[in-house]
Amino acid sequence: MDYYGSIEAGGTKFVCAVADETLTIIKRISLPTMSPEETLKQVFDFFDEYELKAMGVGSFGPIDVNRKSNTYGYITSTPKHGWRNVDLLGRLKERYDIPIAWTTDVNAAAYGEMHLGAGKETQSCIYLTVGTGIGGGAVVNGAVLEVFSHPEMGHITVQRYPNDKLESTCPYHDNCLEGLAAGPALEKRTGTKGQSLPSNHEVWEIEAFYLAQALLNYTLVLSPEKIILGGGVMKQQQLFPLIRESLKVQVGGYVSLPPLEEYIVGCDLGDDSGTIGCLLLAKKKEG
Amino acid sequence: MDYYGSIEAGGTKFVCAVADETLTIIKRISLPTMSPEETLKQVFDFFDEYELKAMGVGSFGPIDVNRKSNTYGYITSTPKHGWRNVDLLGRLKERYDIPIAWTTDVNAAAYGEMHLGAGKETQSCIYLTVGTGIGGGAVVNGAVLEVFSHPEMGHITVQRYPNDKLESTCPYHDNCLEGLAAGPALEKRTGTKGQSLPSNHEVWEIEAFYLAQALLNYTLVLSPEKIILGGGVMKQQQLFPLIRESLKVQVGGYVSLPPLEEYIVGCDLGDDSGTIGCLLLAKKKEG
Repeated sequence: MDYYGSIEAGGTKFVCAVADETLTIIKRISLPTMSPEETLKQVFDFFDEYELKAMGVGSFGPIDVNRKSNTYGYITSTPKHGWRNVDLLGRLKERYDIPIAWTTDVNAAAYGEMHLGAGKETQSCIYLTVGTGIGGGAVVNGAVLEVFSHPEMGHITVQRYPNDKLESTCPYHDNCLEGLAAGPALEKRTGTKGQSLPSNHEVWEIEAFYLAQALLNYTLVLSPEKIILGGGVMKQQQLFPLIRESLKVQVGGYVSLPPLEEYIVGCDLGDDSGTIGCLLLAKKKEG
Repeated sequence: MDYYGSIEAGGTKFVCAVADETLTIIKRISLPTMSPEETLKQVFDFFDEYELKAMGVGSFGPIDVNRKSNTYGYITSTPKHGWRNVDLLGRLKERYDIPIAWTTDVNAAAYGEMHLGAGKETQSCIYLTVGTGIGGGAVVNGAVLEVFSHPEMGHITVQRYPNDKLESTCPYHDNCLEGLAAGPALEKRTGTKGQSLPSNHEVWEIEAFYLAQALLNYTLVLSPEKIILGGGVMKQQQLFPLIRESLKVQVGGYVSLPPLEEYIVGCDLGDDSGTIGCLLLAKKKEG
């Protein structure tokens, strides 16, 4: 039996999984993210039991995905204690002499959703997760998008909602999407966590305005076939029609878009987008 | 001898060229854009003399580049009188039974600059023209970027320069890049055409702020290896250092970029970017 490994390396947890060649997940474990040493020890314990053919890693970032770089495979300027400038890919390669695919967590999720989820009939899609932070990944003509670096779509600048004076929660930017629309911004606006707010709260309109503005700008730059939204904030189903409505207003009739119900959609793979994406990337890397 | 044809189809002029197999341009003509009938007659007169192996067309837009669409090859919702919903590619194919590559004028220029110009050592770059309008094209991993549609980078929303109250010159958007930073906006701000303004005029700082903001957002979405700037406004060489400086401030240290002198550059092919791009696309289409 051929086995494939997947690591979704997150800032709060590492999700490791092993699947057979049909990509059926056989075993999965979720580990709280400790120091690199402690975490990697548990990761190795998990995978050592299997003879893996290949592995796929989708990591929190920023990470170095530039093959020409000396630090390819590193987690780079993360604020996460102990993880800055850690050669995660190198450590894994040291342990396992197999092909290992390496990309961002959101690129992996975009890849998973495009091939087996909400983007199945497309060749190019964007995946955006809206939660504690906002991150985007993209697949263009079937391949994850990473060139000089990887997308950092959560930090694009946005124009303010009329009279919105919220102080951005992003330490880097006064007017970026993440700073005005991620979970912490929602909470700062209302004094309440997003999941505790009523679905008809006026804040959802502000939230939809910012997300729609970002989706419009992604569309004008990348022109994907579909945009798939995931993450904790997007569990608020009422956001989808609000985002579509706001997007329609903001696009101003300038570009033609696919029908918005098909263009702006949720995940099909739920919490498995990233794991499935890593497994697919592992299989591709081997092949 | 094998010949290749190139058409840069613009709203004000059509530039047609014929090159030999080394892509040396043998003959070139510039035609004012009249009605489709009149213009195409002259285009046919020009090319009929040659036995072309293939042709490349870079057209003003919006155009339909979606192969799954019934109107693939059309110029679509242009305000240009007489050209709306014209099947330009179809008309050319009717006349010439050869492979014809079809993309936007700016995608063609991006392709030309990437292969033989300022982006020669890259695989992924953005080309932005700043003139009467603002348009962007992109090459990603060696291929022009067009999926559901083509980029419309000129119309991304931008956050206002402090206290900038200029009424946008874009009929579609109150706060898009083109409406606040293309040639007509420059003229509206100052009462003078850009080329007549002194190079130390304060307006260049505002211009650089908007362009840098756009380049930052393109970078966060696409992460290209290089951004190449062309068009009439970019003949103002003083803009390059101002844009780099403003970009450095706006990025806020969040993402790592190539050295900015190498990242933000002018065209190497001058006015030939588009023609060279079309010829390269023609040759590729044939091959």
